[in-house]
Amino acid sequence: MFRTHTCGELRQTNVGQQTTLAGWVQRIRRMGGMTFVDIRDRYGLTQLVLNQDVNAELFDKANKLGREFVIQVTGDVALRSNINPNMETGDIEILVFDLKILNESKTPPFTIEDNTDGGDDIRMKYRYLDLRRNSVRSNLELRHAIAFETRRYLDKMSFLEVETPVLIGSTPEGARDFVVPSRMNLGQFYALPQSPQLFKQLLMVSGFDRYFQIVKCFRDEDLRADRQPEFTQIDCEMAFVDQEDVLNIFEGMMKHLFKFVKNIEFADAFPRMTWADGMKYYGSDKPDIRFEMKFVEVKEVVSGHNFVVFDSSPYVAGICATGCAGYTRKQLDELTDFVKRPQIGAKGLVYIRCEADGTFKSSVDKFYAPEDLKLIAAQFNAQPGDLILLMSGEMRKTQKALCELRLEIGARLGLRDKNVFAPLWIIDFPLFEYDEETDRYYAMHHPFTSPMLEDLPLLKTNKGAVRSNAYDMVVNGVELGGGSIRIHDRAVQQEMFHHLGFTPEKAEAQFGFLMSAFQYGAPPHGGLAFGLDRLVSLFAGLDSIRDCIAFPKNNSGRDVMMDAPAVLDQSQLDELNLEIKPLTTKGE
Amino acid sequence: MFRTHTCGELRQTNVGQQTTLAGWVQRIRRMGGMTFVDIRDRYGLTQLVLNQDVNAELFDKANKLGREFVIQVTGDVALRSNINPNMETGDIEILVFDLKILNESKTPPFTIEDNTDGGDDIRMKYRYLDLRRNSVRSNLELRHAIAFETRRYLDKMSFLEVETPVLIGSTPEGARDFVVPSRMNLGQFYALPQSPQLFKQLLMVSGFDRYFQIVKCFRDEDLRADRQPEFTQIDCEMAFVDQEDVLNIFEGMMKHLFKFVKNIEFADAFPRMTWADGMKYYGSDKPDIRFEMKFVEVKEVVSGHNFVVFDSSPYVAGICATGCAGYTRKQLDELTDFVKRPQIGAKGLVYIRCEADGTFKSSVDKFYAPEDLKLIAAQFNAQPGDLILLMSGEMRKTQKALCELRLEIGARLGLRDKNVFAPLWIIDFPLFEYDEETDRYYAMHHPFTSPMLEDLPLLKTNKGAVRSNAYDMVVNGVELGGGSIRIHDRAVQQEMFHHLGFTPEKAEAQFGFLMSAFQYGAPPHGGLAFGLDRLVSLFAGLDSIRDCIAFPKNNSGRDVMMDAPAVLDQSQLDELNLEIKPLTTKGE
Repeated sequence: MFRTHTCGELRQTNVGQQTTLAGWVQRIRRMGGMTFVDIRDRYGLTQLVLNQDVNAELFDKANKLGREFVIQVTGDVALRSNINPNMETGDIEILVFDLKILNESKTPPFTIEDNTDGGDDIRMKYRYLDLRRNSVRSNLELRHAIAFETRRYLDKMSFLEVETPVLIGSTPEGARDFVVPSRMNLGQFYALPQSPQLFKQLLMVSGFDRYFQIVKCFRDEDLRADRQPEFTQIDCEMAFVDQEDVLNIFEGMMKHLFKFVKNIEFADAFPRMTWADGMKYYGSDKPDIRFEMKFVEVKEVVSGHNFVVFDSSPYVAGICATGCAGYTRKQLDELTDFVKRPQIGAKGLVYIRCEADGTFKSSVDKFYAPEDLKLIAAQFNAQPGDLILLMSGEMRKTQKALCELRLEIGARLGLRDKNVFAPLWIIDFPLFEYDEETDRYYAMHHPFTSPMLEDLPLLKTNKGAVRSNAYDMVVNGVELGGGSIRIHDRAVQQEMFHHLGFTPEKAEAQFGFLMSAFQYGAPPHGGLAFGLDRLVSLFAGLDSIRDCIAFPKNNSGRDVMMDAPAVLDQSQLDELNLEIKPLTTKGE
Repeated sequence: MFRTHTCGELRQTNVGQQTTLAGWVQRIRRMGGMTFVDIRDRYGLTQLVLNQDVNAELFDKANKLGREFVIQVTGDVALRSNINPNMETGDIEILVFDLKILNESKTPPFTIEDNTDGGDDIRMKYRYLDLRRNSVRSNLELRHAIAFETRRYLDKMSFLEVETPVLIGSTPEGARDFVVPSRMNLGQFYALPQSPQLFKQLLMVSGFDRYFQIVKCFRDEDLRADRQPEFTQIDCEMAFVDQEDVLNIFEGMMKHLFKFVKNIEFADAFPRMTWADGMKYYGSDKPDIRFEMKFVEVKEVVSGHNFVVFDSSPYVAGICATGCAGYTRKQLDELTDFVKRPQIGAKGLVYIRCEADGTFKSSVDKFYAPEDLKLIAAQFNAQPGDLILLMSGEMRKTQKALCELRLEIGARLGLRDKNVFAPLWIIDFPLFEYDEETDRYYAMHHPFTSPMLEDLPLLKTNKGAVRSNAYDMVVNGVELGGGSIRIHDRAVQQEMFHHLGFTPEKAEAQFGFLMSAFQYGAPPHGGLAFGLDRLVSLFAGLDSIRDCIAFPKNNSGRDVMMDAPAVLDQSQLDELNLEIKPLTTKGE
C-alpha cells in the first residue's frame, strides 16, 4: 500500500489525521525556512509543507526534488493558515515527517501545465508526458464517462454488446481497406473492418434483436484534422423497427449522455429537418442550428437589373448578419477573401448594408436602386443595422460556400458557444448521390439502405429524387452519427445492387453471405452508428478529435512516439511470402 | 412499431389484452380445426392459436407457414386450457386475428434447436442461423453480462477505460505479429497488438493511476481449440500498488462477476498457492482444486527394491484415487493407455490396490512385499478401497503426466462439476524459464515483470531460482488471467533486458520509448489481464472458447461464412507496392 489517500481527497474533516500520499512533484516554493511542495496525481493536488526548524535533513531533501519526481510522503493533515479557494484541497496542507523518492525525473521537454509551451510535434513524441496535463487527461476521463454511460443506457434498453471480428474479408467498395496478410493462407489477406455493417445485419437475421458495440473501425484514407486511420464507433442495430423507433431510442441515448455526462437536460424532443431543408436553409446536411441566419433565395428579386453575375447564375441566395452593418471595408474584404479561399472557392461576395438611418449601401449600387435594395432586404426581414451577404452561382456549390460564410459570421458574432448544444435529426436523405466525374450514382449512405416505399416508382425514372429511410444525428454542425432502415428483402437488395452498377457476379462475390442470409427469414431492421471520437470532442469543446484519443496518429498516419509503422525484419516478410517492390522513381 | 410485446413477455396478468408480436416460426402443430404456432424471438416463445371455425382464411395462411418464416401477428391474450409449466409464457396463448408474413425462409440447412443436427462445418458456414439457437445465443448474452459487470465494477473502483491503438509497431519478440502494410509509408508496416502492455505501462507513467480496457488482441499462432487469432482481454493496470493491492482489487472483481452474473457468493478470500507448491502437489501452474488428490512423492520409500524403473528415476510420485480399488484390469489398462498417449508421453503406470480386506495388490508385487506396499500406502494415507497410481521419471515431465492422470481420475469420479467453481491465486512465479532447445533463459511472464527484491542477489548466480512478483488467477484448472508488478526503474529494466539476451541496441530499438518514459518519473505499478473468452466459456461451462464468440475462425484461421482471408484485387497490392512471391514447391 503506497498511500492512504489520493492527492485530491483530503479536506478540513481530515485535519489531525496522519496520511500517506504518493504522486508527482508539480512545483516547489521555498519561503525562508519553509518549503512548499505541490504533489499531484490524477485526482488532484495537495500542498506539502517542510519546516527547516522541525527537520533540517528532510527540508534539504525536499529542496533537492525536481519537477515530476515521484515521491511518497507521510505527514499530518493540518488546517492552512491561508486557505486556497482555487484548490479542492485548499483548506489543508500536510506537515511532512517522512519523504521517499520513488523515482527521479529528468526535466521534461515541455511544462506539464494546462497551457504548455510544447508544440504539437514534441507533445506527440512524448505523449506519455502530454497525457499528464489535466486538460488532456480530462478529455480521456470524459471519453470513459461517455462510453460507460452509453453502455449503461443501451444495456437498460436490452441491447447486447456483441464483438464482431477485426480480421474480416476485404470489400473494395467504399473507402480503402487496411489489409493483413495471412501466414496460414499464403497469398491471401484479411481486411480490417471499416464498420461492422454486415455483421450487425447478420446479427439481426440471427434474432439478436438489439445489438450494439463500441468498436474500433479502420479506413486507409488520407488524413485530415478530424480523421484518424483508426476510429471508434458506437455501432447499433435493432430488429422489428421503423425509423421512428430508432430515432426515439437514440434520441433517448443522447439525452441520457447529455444528462449524466454534461448535466444538461433536454425536456423537448429534438427538432427534425429534412435533408432538403438542410440544404435549402443552411446549405448543409449538418446545419449548426445554435443560431438562425437561414439562407434566403433571392434569384427572382435580383434578376433583371443588368448585373450579369446574378443574371447568369441559376442560384442567388444570402444571409442576414444581424447588427453587422457597421462592418468596415477591411472586415468585408476579409469575408470576401474568406469565401475566395480555394477550400471554399467562391468568386465573390455582394453585401448590402442596412444603415441605421434606413438607407442602404451595397457593393452593387451601380445596378440596384435604393428601392431595389429595400426590396431585397425585405426578403431577409432585415432591420436597420443588419448586413446582407449574397452569393451566386451553381446551386450546390454556392450553398456550400454560403454555409461556410454563415458559420464564419456566426463565429464572429459569438453565436457558436461551445457550451450550448443544439441537437438535430436530419431525415429523408436522398438514396443516391450522383458523381459527375464517373457519371454514376452512388449510395449516399450505403447499399443496404432502404428506399422510401412511396418513392420506389422513381427508381427507374428519376434516381436522384428517391429518398431513403436514412437519418443523421447532428449537434452544433457536427455529424455525430447516422444510420438507416435497411433492406431486408433479397429481391430489393438485388435490385439496389443493380442500380448501383454491381453485376450480379460482383454482388455475389462481395455480399453473397448477406444475400444468402436474407433467404432464411431476415426481419425488418435498422440502426445507426455514432462516432465516439467526435462525440467526445464535441462534449469536450475540442476542435480536433486528436486530443480525445490517448495515442493518436499524425497526418501521415504515423505514431511518432513509438515510431510506427516501420520496416519489418526480412524473416517476417519471408514467412508471409511477401516482397516489397522497389519504389519506381519518376521518369522510369 | 412492429410489436407491442416481445415473445417472452406475456403472462396471466395480460389475459384479455390485445397484443402484436413479431418473430420467427419455431414450429407448427395442426390438431383438427386448430393450428398452433410457436413464435420465437430472443426473449422467448409464445403460442399462437388459429381456429378454422373463426377465420378459415387466416387458418389456411397459418398452415402454409414454414419454419423460420418471419411473421407479425395481432390477437388477444387468452388463458391456456393446458398450462405449459416448461414455458415462461406457458400460462397464455394468443388468439390470432391478424397475421402478416414479413419475410419467408427457405428450409434451414440444420434444425434451429438446442440439440441441432448440424455439424461444425455447416454451422460455421451458416453461423447467422447457428446464432439463432438458444444455447449459442445465451453464451453471447452471458458474454455481454460479464463485460458489462466488469466495467461496472472497475468504474466503481475509479478505473478509466482508455482505448489504446490497434495499429502499432511490430515487436518480433514473443508470439508472431499480424502486420498491416502502410500505404502512406510504403515499405513500412504496422503490427496488430498482442496486448496493450507497453501502452498501459505508459499510461501509468502518465499518471492515469487506474486503467482498464476490454480489448481485442492478436496473435499469429497455429491454432488450437482454445486459441483464436483474435481474442479479447480485460486488460488492467494500477499505479502505486504492490502485489497485495492488485490481488485484492481483482479478487473483488471476480467475486463481483460470480455474484452478479452467476449468483454465486464467495464469502472467504480466494486461496493462494505458490507456483512451487502448484508444481509439487498438482504438477501444474493452474491446478484444478475442485478436488484434492494431491501428489505424494515416494522416491525414498520405493527405492532399493530392485525395481529399476523407480530406482533409476529421479522422481517417483503418485496420487490416491479414493474408492477406485475396484477398477478392473480393463479400466487400469485404459489409464495406462491414457498416460502413454503421445500428448502425455509417459512410459507407464504402477498401481497399488488397497483392498477392502486390508491387503494390497499391485502391478509391482514382484518387487514389493505386502509390508512395503503398506508403507507406500501409508504415505498417501490411503484407506481400504482406494487405488494408488504411481509414475516416475524426470521430475517436470512426470509431474505434467501425473497432472493429466489426476484430472482424468477426477473427471471419472465426477469431481469436476462445471457448476462448482474453485478460484485460486498462483503466486511467486519464477522470473525466468529455461529453454533447452535454445539453451537460453526467457521471461516466464514478460520482460517487464519485477523480480522479488529478496531474490535479486540470485540474478547473477542462479537465474532459475529468481522469483518474480507475478500472479495468475486460476479457476477449475483454467488460467483466467495473470499479471505482475512491473519494473519501473530504468536501470533494473536495462539489466533485465541484458539477462534476457537483448543487446542494448536491440532493447533500444524495440522498447526505446518505454525506456525513455522511465526517465521522467515512472511510478511503481502493476496489473494483469484476464482472457474474456476463457472467462465466458468457464462461466458458460463450455469446452471450447469458440461458442462464446459470435463469428469465430476455424483452425486454419478462416472465417468460412464470409470466406476470409481471400486474394486481393491486384490494384490493392499495387497501391501497397507489394508483390506475392510465387510459392516454391518442394524440391526446388
